[in-house]
Amino acid sequence: MIRLAVRTGVAPHCAVAALLLYAMPAAAEEGMWMPGQSDEIGAAMREDGLELDPAGLSRLDAAPLNAIVSLGGCSASFVSPVGLVVTNHHCVVGSLQYNSEAKRDYLTDGFLAEGRGDELPAAPGTRVYVIEDLRDVTAAMLKGVTSKLGGLDRYERLDANRKALITRCEKQPNRRCDVRPYYGGASYFLQQQLEVLDVRLVYAPALGIGSFGGDTDNWMWPRHTGDFGFYRAYVAPDGSSRTYAKDNVPYRPKSWLRIAGKGVKEGDFVMVAGFPGTTRRLRTAAEVRFNFAQYEPLWQRLLTDYAAQLKRATAGDREAQIRYASILQGAENYEKKLAGDLAGADAIGLDARKQAEEEAYRDWVGADPARQERYSAAIDALDAVAAEYNAASLKGLRQSLLNRAQLLGSARLLYRWAKEQDKPDARRESGYQKRDRKLIADRLAQVERRFLSHVDRELFEAALDEYRQLPAEDRDAAFEALLAAIGLDRLYADTKLGDTATRLRWLDEPAAAFEASDDPFIKLAVALYPGDIAAELEEKERAGRTHAARSTYMKGLHAYRKSKGEPVYPDANGSLRLTWGKVAGRSRDGEIWTPFTTAEGLLAKHTGKGEFDAPDEAVAAIRAKDYGPHASPDLGTLPVDFLSTVDITNGNSGSATLNARGELVGLAFDGTLDGVISDWAFVPERNRTIHVDSRFMLWTMDKVDGAQRLLREMGVGDARPVSDGH
Amino acid sequence: MIRLAVRTGVAPHCAVAALLLYAMPAAAEEGMWMPGQSDEIGAAMREDGLELDPAGLSRLDAAPLNAIVSLGGCSASFVSPVGLVVTNHHCVVGSLQYNSEAKRDYLTDGFLAEGRGDELPAAPGTRVYVIEDLRDVTAAMLKGVTSKLGGLDRYERLDANRKALITRCEKQPNRRCDVRPYYGGASYFLQQQLEVLDVRLVYAPALGIGSFGGDTDNWMWPRHTGDFGFYRAYVAPDGSSRTYAKDNVPYRPKSWLRIAGKGVKEGDFVMVAGFPGTTRRLRTAAEVRFNFAQYEPLWQRLLTDYAAQLKRATAGDREAQIRYASILQGAENYEKKLAGDLAGADAIGLDARKQAEEEAYRDWVGADPARQERYSAAIDALDAVAAEYNAASLKGLRQSLLNRAQLLGSARLLYRWAKEQDKPDARRESGYQKRDRKLIADRLAQVERRFLSHVDRELFEAALDEYRQLPAEDRDAAFEALLAAIGLDRLYADTKLGDTATRLRWLDEPAAAFEASDDPFIKLAVALYPGDIAAELEEKERAGRTHAARSTYMKGLHAYRKSKGEPVYPDANGSLRLTWGKVAGRSRDGEIWTPFTTAEGLLAKHTGKGEFDAPDEAVAAIRAKDYGPHASPDLGTLPVDFLSTVDITNGNSGSATLNARGELVGLAFDGTLDGVISDWAFVPERNRTIHVDSRFMLWTMDKVDGAQRLLREMGVGDARPVSDGH
Repeated sequence: MIRLAVRTGVAPHCAVAALLLYAMPAAAEEGMWMPGQSDEIGAAMREDGLELDPAGLSRLDAAPLNAIVSLGGCSASFVSPVGLVVTNHHCVVGSLQYNSEAKRDYLTDGFLAEGRGDELPAAPGTRVYVIEDLRDVTAAMLKGVTSKLGGLDRYERLDANRKALITRCEKQPNRRCDVRPYYGGASYFLQQQLEVLDVRLVYAPALGIGSFGGDTDNWMWPRHTGDFGFYRAYVAPDGSSRTYAKDNVPYRPKSWLRIAGKGVKEGDFVMVAGFPGTTRRLRTAAEVRFNFAQYEPLWQRLLTDYAAQLKRATAGDREAQIRYASILQGAENYEKKLAGDLAGADAIGLDARKQAEEEAYRDWVGADPARQERYSAAIDALDAVAAEYNAASLKGLRQSLLNRAQLLGSARLLYRWAKEQDKPDARRESGYQKRDRKLIADRLAQVERRFLSHVDRELFEAALDEYRQLPAEDRDAAFEALLAAIGLDRLYADTKLGDTATRLRWLDEPAAAFEASDDPFIKLAVALYPGDIAAELEEKERAGRTHAARSTYMKGLHAYRKSKGEPVYPDANGSLRLTWGKVAGRSRDGEIWTPFTTAEGLLAKHTGKGEFDAPDEAVAAIRAKDYGPHASPDLGTLPVDFLSTVDITNGNSGSATLNARGELVGLAFDGTLDGVISDWAFVPERNRTIHVDSRFMLWTMDKVDGAQRLLREMGVGDARPVSDGH
Repeated sequence: MIRLAVRTGVAPHCAVAALLLYAMPAAAEEGMWMPGQSDEIGAAMREDGLELDPAGLSRLDAAPLNAIVSLGGCSASFVSPVGLVVTNHHCVVGSLQYNSEAKRDYLTDGFLAEGRGDELPAAPGTRVYVIEDLRDVTAAMLKGVTSKLGGLDRYERLDANRKALITRCEKQPNRRCDVRPYYGGASYFLQQQLEVLDVRLVYAPALGIGSFGGDTDNWMWPRHTGDFGFYRAYVAPDGSSRTYAKDNVPYRPKSWLRIAGKGVKEGDFVMVAGFPGTTRRLRTAAEVRFNFAQYEPLWQRLLTDYAAQLKRATAGDREAQIRYASILQGAENYEKKLAGDLAGADAIGLDARKQAEEEAYRDWVGADPARQERYSAAIDALDAVAAEYNAASLKGLRQSLLNRAQLLGSARLLYRWAKEQDKPDARRESGYQKRDRKLIADRLAQVERRFLSHVDRELFEAALDEYRQLPAEDRDAAFEALLAAIGLDRLYADTKLGDTATRLRWLDEPAAAFEASDDPFIKLAVALYPGDIAAELEEKERAGRTHAARSTYMKGLHAYRKSKGEPVYPDANGSLRLTWGKVAGRSRDGEIWTPFTTAEGLLAKHTGKGEFDAPDEAVAAIRAKDYGPHASPDLGTLPVDFLSTVDITNGNSGSATLNARGELVGLAFDGTLDGVISDWAFVPERNRTIHVDSRFMLWTMDKVDGAQRLLREMGVGDARPVSDGH
């Protein structure tokens, strides 16, 4: 499944990284389009079969886009007038785990709230973000950003402008706002979202449906996974957002998606609206080469080793295996994605392709003196700063391993938090402002369910081995000396940070209390702090210089692409995007993928154990061909998953798949391993998205889980919703 | 690729294991038929398209069967009147490695002898075995074997009868004979082969053709591997077999295969003749359950660990990586096969299937008093002895790890050899008779190219960790005490066995010299000997009891299958077999395999590096569509590999694939991962064999490697051979 990478290989300074995101042009079926680009793509969409007015797809205050929500990492959508949200099973799995105990194993058995009062609080940190506005703030962001500024000053200026914009936006209650760079910081948009804090688990099928095929089938086709699940958004009776309270009421969205009465067939138009996380389709040739020659191979090796360490450290200990299951799964999943990246880059000759593209661009720049003056320095400057960045990022990858000791990661987070509290809120580092406190508290709490002291220690020892392979100047001597003095035995014996309440209490302590503390992990965090800050300053300085060079480079590239008549869209950056394509299989030499899988195919894979263990009710209903109205007339049976050509990436998980009339026909949930290279270069013949078919979802609700209450609520069957709520 | 497992998980007492092989019935496309069964299958073959007289397929003294040869582990066939032998690339790869040096890398670049005088000696131990006779020796084998004999006596009697038969057969010069059990020892056949000792490497394409796709594509479809290579058999001028000598002359086979003028197309009849190694399609339900619940999971884990150890021990050391490459590849390849077995057993519900089959058989036995008296005790007896065997084999798997220290393995082999030399040849253990000396010497010599002391030591330490997990009573206290006294430092510092000449010299030393030796590995081997012999005696005793039970059980099963009108064929046991089917792709839910891959598909996979690096000449010729007469009119391009439904297993690698007229249309070289379960239960919808198409072979010889001399010799093109040599 497409899972966000962020958890696995945490970059220490995400605030800085966010400023480095940027954007790229398009061809053929390619494109993650901003809502505002509907005039550029409308005609093509109509030609490909869209029946709606494309102009409507630019409106965030109307259906279908205002039914699309973010879960922060996953995408989702409203499907009823009373706040019912549909997304992928793998996006609600944390809440299933959170609510499970030995004697009520919702993760394995699935969960269906009998009535609305039985809906369960989702896992801590779960949010529904309802998008309300997306506006161009380029002018405000670039205010005071002149070419005279050095790297650090430029960074600080951009950061201050961003914080000011966010602070102003978040003065409106219950709003979460962010400012993201597009086209490498050539432009910025502010995204305003209502933050729903009370999210409840409504329904998810059994693991043998929602995760059927497990890791074996992950990134694979043919696929037979019913990857769907339901939340509901709740607010206070007055409509304001607040955390769980018994008398909260369902949120009433301005619109919601209706479920298509008729499913899709091969060749049908489909579109997907969601929040794709990151693509890097227009990194420079030098950046791409570094990534595939050095960065991802090292990262892949570290993850492979990490997975082996996790297995060794938890071998023969079921309790430990359960606690570390999601960390292991994350490591293995991302290692598989990196392997796909690396193989894909080889297979498509990415290096040569990027080189040729860049040379063509340089030729275009060089062919005109005005262009030369405007753009030629930028790409050289970008290459120069990229070389510095590369060295730092390889080092950073190994340095970041220290945080695999979860209590050290917690201690560093807490001390940094305390240090930032000494400043006025607006001057605090992004991620450590008042607005971030709840998220930090959730992160600190989360450790509890995925931590065991002796396992953590074994993983920390392995991380230290790797860390010590760095040359001395890249390591932290003070930290190492202190660690040696404490020793691992005392480190784990004496710390109190293993206790969740203690970790949370430290959120309110001043920095001085940390500096006076005897807790060995806190002492280590304090020792690491000066080095962390110094590295961060360097990174900010580089980020400022990168911004200066890249935003100019991108403007040039943008102009170049336009001159060739190519439509241009920004690289994915976690903001709302639209992509369209058609339901289509794929053929290559010796092999054809047909676009649909079916219930009979699921049954053929069903073994009754492990990852291929569909629930008895599902097996019986398939054997009896009890498909009710959900079968496809074209296939003559019940579809399970289907393939399309839409262009998605991580973060799109759970995205509504809409037909030509804007009705829900499925949910995007994965790509295929040989298509993941599309994050770097879109290759139409390789790129396929895997969707769970809405008919399989409805059938499971109807015939397997008896979720008729929800079907009625969604207007499926006899009663259909009267309108989309306007 | 299908590679023999034997190297990876050596069973210590192969002689005993050989007596435990047995046999099974058939359905539909299933069956590895003995040549003598052509009257049973002839009609069906004709119906499926065979144009030859099926009676001819039972003749070992006529074409096509007397053109089929064994390489001992691989299959092959004569394709010219002067001893040219075609097989798979992966069957000649050892000889390419053996002849390669840094400055002439035949493995990577391929090898083509310019003239006959330039053909190179194949790797030590390479043989061509020309089958001459296969005769029923059941009566002679069972002479004196009565129901009164205990297990050990029965074993000894069978062993003595077998040796006598072999000795008599091998009185003819240059013959290699073996006696194999069929149907669990219900019958025995003696196979007589001419042993050609001078085998030379004639031609193999570059690694980027012969192993295109490498381990990534191993066991996979779509496939684009040109898995072919050529040897030539040489004999003394007087026609007798002898080792390499300059004035040896090409062997003139009685017949040879002609290359089909026209390749196959979808649906065509194809048959494969070769030497499949082992199938276990009629193990009892209890045996199957044990294998999949315990034995293979442990074995898989040990191989996974071994691969990780090999990688760690050779990390960053190119020399070490090269030396251990084939051991690592073997471990990974077999681990993949075991994973396929385990997944396949789950997927087809093997356990339940075997249970149901066995119950049906028991019902049939129980339905008739005569049958009950004859057969009912046997299956219970078999279950009882299997339980003992299971415990011993789990133990044996861990004990056998000690031989991963290659010098310990060599020392044990040498000391055992010396001990056996004290007996008259006929009384020596199988594998340690005069006739085995050359093979043992080759094994001892082979260590040289795959051994480094420090790597061996690291692997031995890991093996010892695993060995020590056995309970004390399953370990050898004398050995452990001695090893502790010596210590690993001295063990590796003081031994002289690292020197090949020294190892070979020990072949002529008496047992007393070993017992007086100070060489630490020899001391360890001497210490282990009494335990080894005791375990072997126990194993022989079990084998004797197993034989008594299984041969009766098999007779019953045979009668039962016949009563149901099912044709019955023996399980694969390394003897010559025939299988037929048709050229056919495969379809499952969401995916279709088309039966051919093409040159364009190869080009699409070609990246110019790693495992996907076709030679420049091949790439250029494909780009130019320079296919000459080799393209398929049906496909409109050059085929590379194709799929068929024929029933093969390990040992069949290199087997000639023949069309309805008995002409060579390809070479079988692999199966697919989800079909490997066919070793345990044939599943027609899963089973597909992958063949390299003869047209791709001819094209490579013609357009890429300029092997016109060989093409002419094979009668391809202008000159065709006049007859098949009679």
